[in-house]
Amino acid sequence: MRCLLKEKSPWKLIEKVDANPKIVISELEKMKKEGLVEFLNGEIHLTDKGKDEIKRLKISYFDVRCPECNGRGFKTDPFGILNRFKQIVENRPRPTAEYDQGYIREEDLMQRIAFIYERGDVEGANIMVIGDDDLISIALALTGMPEKITVLEIDERLINFINKVAMNLNLNISAQKFDVRHDVPEQFLGKYDIFITDPVETIPGITLFLSRAASTLKDNGAGYFGLTHIEASLRKWQEIEKILLDMNFVITDIIRDFNVYPMNNNLDISQNDYIVYEMVKEFTGKKEIDADFYRSSLIRVEAVGKPLPKVRGDYELKHEVYVDDESIVTAMAKKVE
Amino acid sequence: MRCLLKEKSPWKLIEKVDANPKIVISELEKMKKEGLVEFLNGEIHLTDKGKDEIKRLKISYFDVRCPECNGRGFKTDPFGILNRFKQIVENRPRPTAEYDQGYIREEDLMQRIAFIYERGDVEGANIMVIGDDDLISIALALTGMPEKITVLEIDERLINFINKVAMNLNLNISAQKFDVRHDVPEQFLGKYDIFITDPVETIPGITLFLSRAASTLKDNGAGYFGLTHIEASLRKWQEIEKILLDMNFVITDIIRDFNVYPMNNNLDISQNDYIVYEMVKEFTGKKEIDADFYRSSLIRVEAVGKPLPKVRGDYELKHEVYVDDESIVTAMAKKVE
Repeated sequence: MRCLLKEKSPWKLIEKVDANPKIVISELEKMKKEGLVEFLNGEIHLTDKGKDEIKRLKISYFDVRCPECNGRGFKTDPFGILNRFKQIVENRPRPTAEYDQGYIREEDLMQRIAFIYERGDVEGANIMVIGDDDLISIALALTGMPEKITVLEIDERLINFINKVAMNLNLNISAQKFDVRHDVPEQFLGKYDIFITDPVETIPGITLFLSRAASTLKDNGAGYFGLTHIEASLRKWQEIEKILLDMNFVITDIIRDFNVYPMNNNLDISQNDYIVYEMVKEFTGKKEIDADFYRSSLIRVEAVGKPLPKVRGDYELKHEVYVDDESIVTAMAKKVE
Repeated sequence: MRCLLKEKSPWKLIEKVDANPKIVISELEKMKKEGLVEFLNGEIHLTDKGKDEIKRLKISYFDVRCPECNGRGFKTDPFGILNRFKQIVENRPRPTAEYDQGYIREEDLMQRIAFIYERGDVEGANIMVIGDDDLISIALALTGMPEKITVLEIDERLINFINKVAMNLNLNISAQKFDVRHDVPEQFLGKYDIFITDPVETIPGITLFLSRAASTLKDNGAGYFGLTHIEASLRKWQEIEKILLDMNFVITDIIRDFNVYPMNNNLDISQNDYIVYEMVKEFTGKKEIDADFYRSSLIRVEAVGKPLPKVRGDYELKHEVYVDDESIVTAMAKKVE
């Protein structure tokens, strides 16, 4: 309700609220029935009754985030490589829904690396990246600090792009084909200081991704991955945290809204096909997506001794690995398959 | 090792490294034996061999934190109450080792409230504070947003101070005596939207504090507390996280170094008596503490339905509640008892 003092777009609400858009919409529906809000040309307006309710609940709008660092506490270009990175990745392959892809802003990527660097996980490190739509391997290599970077990726276009850049610029990256249904190849097991990945957000899917990633770590290795509140409910978060602890990790950091997926770049098929878009349009009448609502928390885990992957061996890929009933932003991808 | 490129004080190292100071010291000891560092007047200097090693490991110094918001991503006075708060608490009771006390900087307190506010946990909320050396109850009340604030505290001086300020300024706070060995009084059970506490960092101690705090929450209530890397190893963090999940919480946020305890204000007995001080002085020759090395991560948890406190009923207070072999900063307090 606080957002409604400042914002009128349903997409801005979806951005701010820690919940699946389905839940946001159904809450708005309740508020409309109670006469607290009304919809005009896709915008949400507080009624007089709604304004009274806000006063009663002592709701007040303050802007609490630092404007200097996007509210993240990190500089956006601490290593001085942002412009070079932008040039290099200008012709990156477009994200495709087929592989649940989508990449974060370049500035965000620098802040992510700043955080990993601050933890001491970049310098001289062997780094495993599983799935690299963000091209973090290239940005990391540009800092000149990692010892070696390995990318395991399913998309041939990305593999070729990364290997070509690495060859042209003499960067210590090697990208190769990998399908999460299979074990990580023998030569990568237990060899890495950290992993970086961006798993799908179903329980079987994330268990699989994190297990493969964990199998590549040395003892006491660390891992970095994103998790949303958009497609993962708190009940799912709780289950994922149990799985992480079972795998002998400790969660050392959870930084909210660290990764922002710009809506402009990340959809290769018409927005109209995504479940979430249909739902918002139908309910509020809003026709454009005018907020980068898809964000994830950056989670850092560290093995307390030896990592214990939950899944080993081949795993038959079922529909449920990619989609569950909380998948509504990435869900279109699956209908296409 | 990266810190050694910039810092020479052992206290700065203890501040930056995620580990018990005992471990930092023993690592320095190893490095000294290997001829990588030497000590001069309490300062740590890299030897030529040490400088070569840093080059080999690709270690480089970058300052990655935002200077505008203390690297926290929040404004230091978003609600415009900082100066008023500072005036009000000017004559606060001094921290006493007897109750494991110590308070954070006023600016940090504003940022903590900014974070709690951003989560929607301040406006119209019933707030339970267990142990309030920080006087967050007063700062929260000054925002005018909470519905009601209850403070449970063992120190009569703080209880009297808070109640007097509340009466004089007509703030909706009520402070009363509470000893964590006993259950929370009946009238507070299941009544609060959030709790805020700063538990001792032994496993029995933190289990007790978090259980008492959890018992005051409504279903789906949230909790905020601090946890250090100074007196809590990652193995202990892992165990604490298991306990939180067992209590039906999910961990939604872990923000590193959010709480800084200034060394100037927080010791009421001579520094010389603290184990950590003796240890650093003996090993490096450094005679003053010149870094605010005692920091904690701010952790937010949220109940997924009903919170399930692990401990209920009276609990006999044993030494182990306050001290374990990782307690070295707060440890002097216990010897006094």
